[in-house]
Amino acid sequence: MRLAGKPCFSMTEKELFRVYQNRRVLITGGLGFIGSNLAQVLVRQAGARVCLIDNEAPHCGSNIRNLDGIEKDAEVLLGDIGDADLVRPVVRNVEIIFNLAGSISHIDSMTHPHQDLHANAGAHLSLLDTCRRENPGVRILYAGTRQVYGRPCSLPVDESHPACPVDFNGVHKLLGEGYHFLYASLCGLRPTCLRLTNTYGPRQLLHHPRQGFVGWFIRQALLGEELQLFGGGHQLRDFNFVDDVVAAMLLAAVSENAIGKIYNLGSGAAVSIRNFVETLLTVCPGLTFRDIDFPSERRSIDIGSYYADCSRIRADLGWEAATPLEEGLRKTLHFYRDNRSAYMMPR
Amino acid sequence: MRLAGKPCFSMTEKELFRVYQNRRVLITGGLGFIGSNLAQVLVRQAGARVCLIDNEAPHCGSNIRNLDGIEKDAEVLLGDIGDADLVRPVVRNVEIIFNLAGSISHIDSMTHPHQDLHANAGAHLSLLDTCRRENPGVRILYAGTRQVYGRPCSLPVDESHPACPVDFNGVHKLLGEGYHFLYASLCGLRPTCLRLTNTYGPRQLLHHPRQGFVGWFIRQALLGEELQLFGGGHQLRDFNFVDDVVAAMLLAAVSENAIGKIYNLGSGAAVSIRNFVETLLTVCPGLTFRDIDFPSERRSIDIGSYYADCSRIRADLGWEAATPLEEGLRKTLHFYRDNRSAYMMPR
Repeated sequence: MRLAGKPCFSMTEKELFRVYQNRRVLITGGLGFIGSNLAQVLVRQAGARVCLIDNEAPHCGSNIRNLDGIEKDAEVLLGDIGDADLVRPVVRNVEIIFNLAGSISHIDSMTHPHQDLHANAGAHLSLLDTCRRENPGVRILYAGTRQVYGRPCSLPVDESHPACPVDFNGVHKLLGEGYHFLYASLCGLRPTCLRLTNTYGPRQLLHHPRQGFVGWFIRQALLGEELQLFGGGHQLRDFNFVDDVVAAMLLAAVSENAIGKIYNLGSGAAVSIRNFVETLLTVCPGLTFRDIDFPSERRSIDIGSYYADCSRIRADLGWEAATPLEEGLRKTLHFYRDNRSAYMMPR
Repeated sequence: MRLAGKPCFSMTEKELFRVYQNRRVLITGGLGFIGSNLAQVLVRQAGARVCLIDNEAPHCGSNIRNLDGIEKDAEVLLGDIGDADLVRPVVRNVEIIFNLAGSISHIDSMTHPHQDLHANAGAHLSLLDTCRRENPGVRILYAGTRQVYGRPCSLPVDESHPACPVDFNGVHKLLGEGYHFLYASLCGLRPTCLRLTNTYGPRQLLHHPRQGFVGWFIRQALLGEELQLFGGGHQLRDFNFVDDVVAAMLLAAVSENAIGKIYNLGSGAAVSIRNFVETLLTVCPGLTFRDIDFPSERRSIDIGSYYADCSRIRADLGWEAATPLEEGLRKTLHFYRDNRSAYMMPR
């Protein structure tokens, strides 16, 4: 994390970590990509008292190796956030919840919509109802998604853009987000939602392509395989390095003026998927790619170009993305080369 | 129904009924208030071949007596629309589905959100998935609700008003609606959504007040009890007599230009809840009411004033409400006086 490097941040990295020192924090989906990066920072750098809940859903990114180095310092509860008996004792005693559990595969949601409904809505309804009973004013940061906007009507997309999701994952994530704000008015819950865009970095699932192209391209780069670019790759995207996302979460969850708010994350610089691949090529010399047609099952839920207007979070919290794409990709590949066995499982 | 009386309708009542003659129609929630009124018209006046599905959920308005007079002509399947084995054979063979099943109590949704999630979203996801497998292009009319708008930002409310529901019932009905349009893009389903407002008339549940004040006031009028008006009753509402709602459904479900559209229903004339009570008093001489404070559990989910801009459905389908409030209330009270035993069960 490189929080202090940006003069516009409302506090330095050191000040932010001090706020978390010894605080009791729950991370749902804590064995997953972003949850585990957050846990690593909270344990190692901030000295927080971290509990993780994770249901180890297959193919969703949960990986016990994501805790390498902090396995003795973080409490891990294996189970579903919809299991009230499991979550009750921890919810009762926690000060901040980072609610990152859920399913993020758009393509899987189309074949298993009921599973997606449970993971992204039903289970969160249970968790929030437990908060209402046990800790109604708890501070909760919810990991939302740009997918709720659907196909953008205009670019860049700000938070007032209509929510018109095009797949089950998008409609269910929108419902999960809505629950947080409904409970805010019901019981005084103090939620903040960050709508994430394409996040990449260490500890991401690499062994199938159904969570989007980013992890899959990184895998292929590591294996020296030829990349396949769908339909020219001209769609614009916002890419965030995971450390920048973790910084946004840490800031938002302790900022009074973030309570009850929704914020877009983004890079501040739209990049085409083709450009992403070209940047990957500069980091991995010798890598090649070829253009292929868009597979039909992906075309139907493709949202075209997307990039976010992040002025709200910059104005309220002083956050902006700090890691250039090339630097982030370099760090990412470096991590996986050092930790190959944990992430390069066969398909 | 009095369809032909309005010159702006796109077809006469007679022509509309002829379209339905011998057509295979499914009504979900068919033992409920609006579903059974629709069934009565389709069987008696149009000669359609009607199948009803109803799960007889307690306190939701399901009443076998709603079929009085057509019990031998309509096929009734008792069960949940989420039961694929039950609905598969009928979905396969039907031309039009009127999808009216669901829970409509805002107040019950706040105490039993998981039940509401199943009734208004999970069960519909199953039904639509069965449509996708068995009859992907089926014409389906979904009974939505003005509750999806939440507290209006501006009045009258047209269909482009943001959807910001304030209770579980609203968020789940919005999801159920969203599913229909998602399946339209997925498999060619041909949906239309009508967003209903306060509907009143024969065959409505009268034995508890948790489905809104309309049925409850009518019950009290029938019993000669003093009515209680919350907070002055100054909020504006749109009231639709059920025959007008049935006419809108029949029109929309056979109109090509309604496919893929959402339409508000409304009366075209906003009426305060106080005015509603005063009109009821003119129809029931001797009736009295008194003002009381708004109960807190209702205030938190009250949406303030609401009335709809219905110009879209008027332009596309030529529909507008035909029944003045006083006339509708007179017919309603007349019906219940003749059918007292079926509706005046104890609390």
